[in-house]
Amino acid sequence: VPSAVTAPQFEQLIATHMSANPRIEFSVRGIEEGEATVVLRYSPTQLRPGDTISGPALFTLADTALYAAVLSVVGLEPLCVTSDMTIHFLRKPAPGDVEGCARVLKRGRRLVYGDVVLRSCEGREIVAHASGSYAVPAR
Amino acid sequence: VPSAVTAPQFEQLIATHMSANPRIEFSVRGIEEGEATVVLRYSPTQLRPGDTISGPALFTLADTALYAAVLSVVGLEPLCVTSDMTIHFLRKPAPGDVEGCARVLKRGRRLVYGDVVLRSCEGREIVAHASGSYAVPAR
Amino acid sequence: VPSAVTAPQFEQLIATHMSANPRIEFSVRGIEEGEATVVLRYSPTQLRPGDTISGPALFTLADTALYAAVLSVVGLEPLCVTSDMTIHFLRKPAPGDVEGCARVLKRGRRLVYGDVVLRSCEGREIVAHASGSYAVPAR
Amino acid sequence: VPSAVTAPQFEQLIATHMSANPRIEFSVRGIEEGEATVVLRYSPTQLRPGDTISGPALFTLADTALYAAVLSVVGLEPLCVTSDMTIHFLRKPAPGDVEGCARVLKRGRRLVYGDVVLRSCEGREIVAHASGSYAVPAR
Repeated sequence: VPSAVTAPQFEQLIATHMSANPRIEFSVRGIEEGEATVVLRYSPTQLRPGDTISGPALFTLADTALYAAVLSVVGLEPLCVTSDMTIHFLRKPAPGDVEGCARVLKRGRRLVYGDVVLRSCEGREIVAHASGSYAVPAR
Repeated sequence: VPSAVTAPQFEQLIATHMSANPRIEFSVRGIEEGEATVVLRYSPTQLRPGDTISGPALFTLADTALYAAVLSVVGLEPLCVTSDMTIHFLRKPAPGDVEGCARVLKRGRRLVYGDVVLRSCEGREIVAHASGSYAVPAR
Repeated sequence: VPSAVTAPQFEQLIATHMSANPRIEFSVRGIEEGEATVVLRYSPTQLRPGDTISGPALFTLADTALYAAVLSVVGLEPLCVTSDMTIHFLRKPAPGDVEGCARVLKRGRRLVYGDVVLRSCEGREIVAHASGSYAVPAR
Repeated sequence: VPSAVTAPQFEQLIATHMSANPRIEFSVRGIEEGEATVVLRYSPTQLRPGDTISGPALFTLADTALYAAVLSVVGLEPLCVTSDMTIHFLRKPAPGDVEGCARVLKRGRRLVYGDVVLRSCEGREIVAHASGSYAVPAR
């Protein structure tokens, strides 16, 4: 089943309305109904002490990838908002692009829930895992 | 009991090493052993659709306030890293400063755990709650 | 402000409808609007290897204490259900009663959110912390 | 790669040392290195108001399935303990067996992390999702 939003639509939504951090750039590697893969492009400004990508940058990737998966189900609805998110940081990612692969596990009318596996694009090792809910506004 | 780090020390650490997002600025309102209050200074660039402060900006505040509370116990240890974090977004904060009030609930040798209540500085309503662990490097 | 349910009403609700585990007994130590303290009475059958109280028994206490705090706000509504819960086990509790002290942090029409601190009744040390949401059925 | 513990070994460990609730019975449907599927056998005593299986019973299943997956990696180590767990209840399961399918996402020396998808055995719909960490004792 195709996604309810296209990759360019989602990228434009993020670039226009959600680029709170000019040093964080995303690209959509793939999107289908209920699944999305989003890449956080590496920039040295994302590093924190220990030469690893900062927790908030990884959280932003998890949140964005899951948002893409949610919109792939509910359509282009910018007022969908994160309701809760749990993230575990599992390995310190080496400097480089990181990929978030999100899937929807429950699509309710009001809440959509899913999880995200974050991997270093180069070594493919899992660096974090997140899960959470998005509130869908009533129509 | 006084904090193991001072407010200026913590602010400098964040400004020097963790300012991955130039549009996010923090100030420490208070820090004692096991407790810290950190303020996210409002900037219109933090808004997302719906004219509310973005989830990643609030996560960054929660992470930073809890980091301050953890360092108040373990001292100036930049290599402390977030191990896991759960955040619930409870109300959409109005544009304006947001305050994160963190407390340490468990201080282990290797893991320090605590939680954070986030409030709008103006209306004082709770806008989010987070809890999580930090890994303390072995000495 | 007084609670919307009394301690005996809540204890009877739990004993009648939610005593899935006959070896787990609760008593309400205090309940006010938005706050409740519930005690898990110790039984050796709650132990797991390491002579500590099992994780599921502590989760049940956290869930029950938060349920009491939620009902103190919304009234005697047995169809309120837990929507999500995060628990961190912080210390292995010694054999003995454990107390869960719950507070409501957000009361929405559909979701009520709060957290719970679990302490050993004897030593008073914090053994776990939990937070989560309850879904309130539409009337 | 085969599991470091067999299904009968794990079932005996649970039955002997962790059967805090006599009304909860588990069987292992499959176990390989880093993956385990555990079934919670239905009993009417697991129900709560609304004729659905109680949250603590589902939490116990999630915890047990993830414990099996962790032991499949670290071996028969009864002193492994849950460090944190987040569970989202997604649908009310109908009365009947529930299956928890767990996978390990990170195996550290001291912490093993994974997640669990819970499904009704009959309808196969997802009823809950959990993720969490286990602390492995030093040898």
